[in-house]
Amino acid sequence: MPKIYLDYAATAPVRPQIEKKIMPFLSEKFGNPSSIHSFGREARKAVDEARESVAKFLNCEPLEVIFTSGGTESDNLAIRGIVTNYKLVPHIITSKIEHHAVLHTCKQLEKEKLAEVTYLDVNKTGRVKPEDVKKAIKKNTILTSIMYANNETGTIQPIREIGKIIEKENKKRKNKIYFHTDAVQAAGYLNCNIKYLHVDLLTLSGHKLGTPKGIGVLFIKKGTPIHPLITGGEHEAGKRAGTENVPGIVAMGQAVKLSQNGREKSQIKKLRDYFEKQIMTKIPDVELNSHPKDRLPNISNLNFKYIEGESILLNLDLKGIAASSGSACTSGSLEPSHVIMTIYDDPLRANSSIRFSLGWDINKKELDYVIKILPGIIKKLRKISPFGKK
Amino acid sequence: MPKIYLDYAATAPVRPQIEKKIMPFLSEKFGNPSSIHSFGREARKAVDEARESVAKFLNCEPLEVIFTSGGTESDNLAIRGIVTNYKLVPHIITSKIEHHAVLHTCKQLEKEKLAEVTYLDVNKTGRVKPEDVKKAIKKNTILTSIMYANNETGTIQPIREIGKIIEKENKKRKNKIYFHTDAVQAAGYLNCNIKYLHVDLLTLSGHKLGTPKGIGVLFIKKGTPIHPLITGGEHEAGKRAGTENVPGIVAMGQAVKLSQNGREKSQIKKLRDYFEKQIMTKIPDVELNSHPKDRLPNISNLNFKYIEGESILLNLDLKGIAASSGSACTSGSLEPSHVIMTIYDDPLRANSSIRFSLGWDINKKELDYVIKILPGIIKKLRKISPFGKK
Repeated sequence: MPKIYLDYAATAPVRPQIEKKIMPFLSEKFGNPSSIHSFGREARKAVDEARESVAKFLNCEPLEVIFTSGGTESDNLAIRGIVTNYKLVPHIITSKIEHHAVLHTCKQLEKEKLAEVTYLDVNKTGRVKPEDVKKAIKKNTILTSIMYANNETGTIQPIREIGKIIEKENKKRKNKIYFHTDAVQAAGYLNCNIKYLHVDLLTLSGHKLGTPKGIGVLFIKKGTPIHPLITGGEHEAGKRAGTENVPGIVAMGQAVKLSQNGREKSQIKKLRDYFEKQIMTKIPDVELNSHPKDRLPNISNLNFKYIEGESILLNLDLKGIAASSGSACTSGSLEPSHVIMTIYDDPLRANSSIRFSLGWDINKKELDYVIKILPGIIKKLRKISPFGKK
Repeated sequence: MPKIYLDYAATAPVRPQIEKKIMPFLSEKFGNPSSIHSFGREARKAVDEARESVAKFLNCEPLEVIFTSGGTESDNLAIRGIVTNYKLVPHIITSKIEHHAVLHTCKQLEKEKLAEVTYLDVNKTGRVKPEDVKKAIKKNTILTSIMYANNETGTIQPIREIGKIIEKENKKRKNKIYFHTDAVQAAGYLNCNIKYLHVDLLTLSGHKLGTPKGIGVLFIKKGTPIHPLITGGEHEAGKRAGTENVPGIVAMGQAVKLSQNGREKSQIKKLRDYFEKQIMTKIPDVELNSHPKDRLPNISNLNFKYIEGESILLNLDLKGIAASSGSACTSGSLEPSHVIMTIYDDPLRANSSIRFSLGWDINKKELDYVIKILPGIIKKLRKISPFGKK
């Protein structure tokens, strides 16, 4: 039986070029970057080079790149790290379709009475409306956090427009509104130039870009008042204590270089479009859950009407095909996707949607196997479905 | 020129057996443990097995093992995670010789007016006195955090005795005092049975045991009210959000097994004792900075009177030998070791002390090279030293 992985948005294999690059940092160049001897200096040099590589990718200063243990920690550091600065309860603007690393952190801050939060709706294509951000701004607003591309639908959010609106507002007010974007899903495909995006804080996750799990980045624009979540030694400019994850950091430096490969991206888009067209041709009653154009090239989130997404996944899994019904971080919770629910307000649709996400290792042959298998599964499930049309 | 690494207490190379074990989890078994398909289940199984291995090592339940990004995060989670529970300002007891992950976190909590802290002194052998813990207990004491073995001197702290004292006190009071120990340095050599130690919280770091950097553990005894530092998905029983670092976790499961090798430990002790005896025989005016008996078998922290430790390190480094003048996390800060200062209240001693720390890969030939080189370096430096006896 083949093993076909169409869940790159959940995690990805380590890219061979990255694996090769990090191997020496496990057993030979294993020094602690804080040590002053040759082993330490060798590790420090590798960390510095990776920081420069990430800074180049983001078009920022190396000192504005803070390495963390992953996307979730970066989101927490951006949000909690800024809220801690205010004595009066500050106001945060975010959206209802954020990743749980942002949503649950905001809810937790509300619960602790450390912040009040506005959760913005999205339009019918799954996008936050920039004018809604403007309308939501209050006197005590200190942070807006909107993701760059949604992890379930792949729909791209108007970050640059929102960034410009906030910048304009900031000229008129005393207490600055900082702007954070979770670019975890976007980083492999979209322009992450922080000056183009007009953001103060930006989250990256390594493992979605082909590094080992356990490494992330938070871009913190110079002057942004972020309090560390984790205190101890003076690592990462005092913003994140703990011995640097050298192999992870080296991997991150390499990953952002690889993610700039335009040819690879357009190949993935071509394959995704082919896959989607074939599925929609061969299977009736399938709807796209994303913005038709402004979306990542690797995600195909589809509504297979009248049936349970979990049953499709189970049947695909039995044939060696891995896809998902939403964020991996919420799998097993049995709650319908909060993203699909926010866009369509339709529990049936939320329950019958599947995310296929492609990556650098997918080929047409693998997709053809899925295209061959899936129509039969859908037909069979619709026959026994209690939700309508057979 | 040889490359001799005597700084295992700062970090260590990844052990070959661990490297071999984790390789499949980079590029083949790369699933996200939260995914429900076969790739995810395979990763979940590996995480579960590692958790069981760590639980066995600690003699606790698998659900009491929380994986973090490292020792510093674990210390932060233990301390901040418990303080968050109290409405009135709670009281913490710790010692002046803790790692900065504990010390700076306590200082930060004081600064934020979230806790008041008692920093205990140590006796002339570098040990916290259990009766001092008892004396320091107040009505609002909620946490005691004392390290298991000091990272600079290797001196072992009376954790079991303190644990029993706290347990006895808890029988007499309403608000429980929780007991945390940072066992980062101890874990490779001492009994970490949490029932023997009578602790509620215990920190482990992977990379000191031969895993890649970026993985740690916090043991949280069932019923201990710990609030997560990092929120998002429901990973790690809701106590630490973020995609699990599967290779790191697998490495940790393997590392605690390897650290139970008694033959290896006694071999390291034999080598350390040989090294220390030779140095003290060949070089005059050298003093031990540790408890003569109750100390880790791999650390030799020595005071080379009348000279600067940094100069010794520099000269050793030029000969390919890596040692350190204290915690790597504070290197470059130029402040004298807070540990040696606390024990001896002597800035000269703090400045002229060197830590040699051995590990599983050290052999006698390497030590003989250091024994040959070091006397000449000390002699040369003493000749030009402004601090006394030439």
